[in-house]
Amino acid sequence: TLAVDMLGSETKTKEILKGLEQSLLRNINYRFHLFGDKYQIFKELKNYKKLEDFVSITQCSDSISMNDKPSEIIKSKKSSSMYLAIKSVEEKNSDAVLSFGNTGALMTLSLLNLRTLPEIKRPSIASIWPNMRGESIVLDLGANTKLSARYLADNAILGSCLASILFKIEKPSIGILNVGTEEIKGNEEIKIASDQLKEFSKLGSINYYGFIEGNDISIGKTNVVVTDGFTGNIALKTAEGTAKLYQSHLNSAYQSSWMSKLG
Amino acid sequence: TLAVDMLGSETKTKEILKGLEQSLLRNINYRFHLFGDKYQIFKELKNYKKLEDFVSITQCSDSISMNDKPSEIIKSKKSSSMYLAIKSVEEKNSDAVLSFGNTGALMTLSLLNLRTLPEIKRPSIASIWPNMRGESIVLDLGANTKLSARYLADNAILGSCLASILFKIEKPSIGILNVGTEEIKGNEEIKIASDQLKEFSKLGSINYYGFIEGNDISIGKTNVVVTDGFTGNIALKTAEGTAKLYQSHLNSAYQSSWMSKLG
Repeated sequence: TLAVDMLGSETKTKEILKGLEQSLLRNINYRFHLFGDKYQIFKELKNYKKLEDFVSITQCSDSISMNDKPSEIIKSKKSSSMYLAIKSVEEKNSDAVLSFGNTGALMTLSLLNLRTLPEIKRPSIASIWPNMRGESIVLDLGANTKLSARYLADNAILGSCLASILFKIEKPSIGILNVGTEEIKGNEEIKIASDQLKEFSKLGSINYYGFIEGNDISIGKTNVVVTDGFTGNIALKTAEGTAKLYQSHLNSAYQSSWMSKLG
Repeated sequence: TLAVDMLGSETKTKEILKGLEQSLLRNINYRFHLFGDKYQIFKELKNYKKLEDFVSITQCSDSISMNDKPSEIIKSKKSSSMYLAIKSVEEKNSDAVLSFGNTGALMTLSLLNLRTLPEIKRPSIASIWPNMRGESIVLDLGANTKLSARYLADNAILGSCLASILFKIEKPSIGILNVGTEEIKGNEEIKIASDQLKEFSKLGSINYYGFIEGNDISIGKTNVVVTDGFTGNIALKTAEGTAKLYQSHLNSAYQSSWMSKLG
């Protein structure tokens, strides 16, 4: 059962409903607890008939906007769709939260109300990244921009859990992003994290591969790619920018060949 | 006059000569001082007739390999093509060095023999990065993997000089890569560097734009993109990997449509 925050983002109600309906193709056991504007949801739900039997709706008119600061939200937005969606997980009425809104607010409210797994200090932002062999989990993408051996090791464990569930791999391989693959490369924090993960790997709890480089993400060298939130955020946005640049070159190449044909 | 190290890399003599010949199309005032195997160079030079009047050759048979460690090279490789090419700049017989070989060795030998510009602490690795508006200079790409406000500020100045010469812009715009564009974003070192560059900008010596994000590299928001060597190295390799992934998807899409046509 997913608690779905329907408000406060640029994603339209009908887009969210379309996505939820499609997710039923993967798993017919999903249930959706929607937090948003009942009238708006009912209006759009008519177009997603297959979904109707799988949803329940809690009326919310208050929402957290993209510009609200996390610090201000904690006290003031207790009637917002995001807060109530998170609360429904805390109260065990849902298993997870889905939101398209303010990431900072989502992390802050989740941390305060749901807390982290035992021994994990802070939450992390992960993404599913396409590669030549399929997909990998890359994290952290900006939750913790401070470089810390502890965060890196925590991210490795979080990423391993996520990849294990999503990709159905018992022990996903884990790599730490570095400027080279030799053991002497990189900063102190990375080396400490790497040594720690080697220990965990010897104990059999995880499958640590070692250092990998930026180009190994797209090659798909490991199932999980671990980095600090600063580097991860910049790597993700640089990759997005590169894909757009590539696409725009293709478009102009296509256009000029089309124009020349016309000529 | 460029001192060209012809040995110690995977780039073939004929490829280097082809490139040098093409560079004459941009500037007919270039002269090339080649350091390498005379016999080999003469053999290939026959195919690049336009180049013949613009080159002189210093015979070298010794070279620095890609696997030689910088620390070992300093004493032992004084007859290598790379060392002699660098020396010719020190002795003012050439204006700059061009090498396709061991980057670590090139940086170490250059630093020892040529030193840095006044007030610049360490050399940096820069690249010309394509973007939607043309090209920008991105640095550091791995020379200094330690995060330091001083290195960031130095890189801004080095990048500005390089962009000014290459792109013929009087005061190139400079951005620092960060996880957001607001002043409160990022770590302490980045904030100190940013404040320093604002001061330089007020004095009129540079044109500092402010913080930019990873996707702004490809957009071409600034002429110079400054980052630390750790983040820069990973961003560069991630972008290269993304371009290759995009290309491989295109190839397989093309192939499958070609196959279906055949079908």
